[in-house]
Amino acid sequence: MCKRENTKPVYAGKVKIGGGGVSIQSMCNTDTIDVDKTARQINQLAAEGCEIARLAVNNADAAKAFAEIRKKTHIPLVADIHFDYRLALLCVENGADKIRINPGNIGEKSNVLQVAKACKSRNIPIRIGVNMGSMEAEVVKRFGKTAQAMVESALYNVGLLNECDFDDIVISLKASSVKVTVDAYRLISKRVGYPLHIGVTESGTLHSGMIKSSIGIGALLLDGIGDTIRVSLTADPIEEVRAAKSILRATGLLHSGAELISCPSCGRCKIDQIKIANEVEKALGKINKNVKVAVMGCVVNGPGEASDADIGIAGGDGCAILFKKGKIVRKIKECEIIDTLLKEIGDM
Amino acid sequence: MCKRENTKPVYAGKVKIGGGGVSIQSMCNTDTIDVDKTARQINQLAAEGCEIARLAVNNADAAKAFAEIRKKTHIPLVADIHFDYRLALLCVENGADKIRINPGNIGEKSNVLQVAKACKSRNIPIRIGVNMGSMEAEVVKRFGKTAQAMVESALYNVGLLNECDFDDIVISLKASSVKVTVDAYRLISKRVGYPLHIGVTESGTLHSGMIKSSIGIGALLLDGIGDTIRVSLTADPIEEVRAAKSILRATGLLHSGAELISCPSCGRCKIDQIKIANEVEKALGKINKNVKVAVMGCVVNGPGEASDADIGIAGGDGCAILFKKGKIVRKIKECEIIDTLLKEIGDM
Repeated sequence: MCKRENTKPVYAGKVKIGGGGVSIQSMCNTDTIDVDKTARQINQLAAEGCEIARLAVNNADAAKAFAEIRKKTHIPLVADIHFDYRLALLCVENGADKIRINPGNIGEKSNVLQVAKACKSRNIPIRIGVNMGSMEAEVVKRFGKTAQAMVESALYNVGLLNECDFDDIVISLKASSVKVTVDAYRLISKRVGYPLHIGVTESGTLHSGMIKSSIGIGALLLDGIGDTIRVSLTADPIEEVRAAKSILRATGLLHSGAELISCPSCGRCKIDQIKIANEVEKALGKINKNVKVAVMGCVVNGPGEASDADIGIAGGDGCAILFKKGKIVRKIKECEIIDTLLKEIGDM
Repeated sequence: MCKRENTKPVYAGKVKIGGGGVSIQSMCNTDTIDVDKTARQINQLAAEGCEIARLAVNNADAAKAFAEIRKKTHIPLVADIHFDYRLALLCVENGADKIRINPGNIGEKSNVLQVAKACKSRNIPIRIGVNMGSMEAEVVKRFGKTAQAMVESALYNVGLLNECDFDDIVISLKASSVKVTVDAYRLISKRVGYPLHIGVTESGTLHSGMIKSSIGIGALLLDGIGDTIRVSLTADPIEEVRAAKSILRATGLLHSGAELISCPSCGRCKIDQIKIANEVEKALGKINKNVKVAVMGCVVNGPGEASDADIGIAGGDGCAILFKKGKIVRKIKECEIIDTLLKEIGDM
């Protein structure tokens, strides 16, 4: 299995994909032709932590908009191309930092080759973006709609690009089934060393989409697979970036910022722990500090369970104990919990 | 590795844990002594899909409340015991269907043995609930705070119970680190065939907790590991059950009910897809029908991508196409999308 440390690095603008590290992507849901609106959304996504933004390009005007959007933004921009390879060529001319093509719907072999030539001339990587629902007919005929089929489709297209001496490739293999998606990425990681863009497609609305994406992306990241991630949600793309950051943090791949650990409250808890945990989390979001904070309902889940937290509280009856690195510091009143925690963190 | 089909079944009341299938657990956050409030919460959780409810038992009054709560509820009830093994004995007398002990904080060996004897006399299973933060001191000294340590702690306690000829065991190995949690369960599944209760502990508030739990529980379920799950959230326990159902559905382990697949909208989308997807999802929650519904922003992610959906729409400009099993049925106006989908589903 080729783990992320050993994948071949490619560059979308200044962002390295492959060879270690995991970058966060999202995709605009604005009309690409609306330059101001699209640039504004890209900058909002970037401010939230998005490192690469993808734009739908469905006509020549959208391709031409790339040049203007580029001037108003600072993160790499990927052109998402379906059906018409000529739009890819136009995007390359207009400053796209990476091209995504869906090989199953881009037409004949020579189309892929022309895109490869254009990208090679400007050192732009290509993502072969295989989707379960739009693979080459021959592949589906031979392998069915399976993880194996997505892998074979990707490898066929890698072959086409390689024929053209093109090697700056990123691969994605997305299905709406989490299991099939995970299986496909595990399979391909044993076959090639190209960086992998991972995600679950058509994963649904905020709640179910976050869960499907977390499982699929998270399981692969824990395996050491995946160089760049995109959480697909039928929601504001800002939510995709937030979820992506949480997934990276949960899998130990993002260490910056504050982390809150909190137990589910239970019958032992005598403080309003759900409210306190949410308010502390909200306040931590505004503090740019690498700190692990615990908000525990009672002593059972107190200092012992949270001994690797930098600071925390464990609820008592109308009070709480404040602890640091598992050691009790002092007792405080319930009404002082939030202020005390935030002051102590501020002083750290 | 012992997969869930091959774990040894035990019974918490009428609910089988082990030997195939995955049940959903949650835990009340009411004061157990408040019988009415606790029974009401249990019944709400059960109505949402919870199959086993756990109650904190921190004093004799809470243990005695079990008998009354039992009469007002119908799903198996688990007594959660820390520190005092005598509370476990009292819960067994008062009708608990399963006992959870945390071996690290229950005191000497003879305490565990007494609980085993009491449970054996009434055919009640015991969960050895190891938590990273409260393992036996000797185990931590020897193995550190590692996945291996949690496994060794569990195996030591399995040994104690086995000495007592007690074999109706469930094991959990929870850490607040997703990776350590997953590693621990993978390790123990190679060592014993007891059913596993899986979850990530102190996973945090609704957003981050759902993500951590989805990754940890989801990755293991995809491996074939896990017989019963509990999503821990610092939130209303109803949210734990909702998340658990979504995790089971996403991993192909729950097939009942309607499933919505929807693409993230992008620059190609000309309909208000986020709103439509959310409204359709909400309406589907009230329909008791096994149906897969797709709400797609455009034809790129349309019938092809969603060909395994029973029914769906793909947005156009002020309109949409209605499709069934990937075949286009007819064109409809945007304002008719929700009503048409729900009527067609109702007629199915």
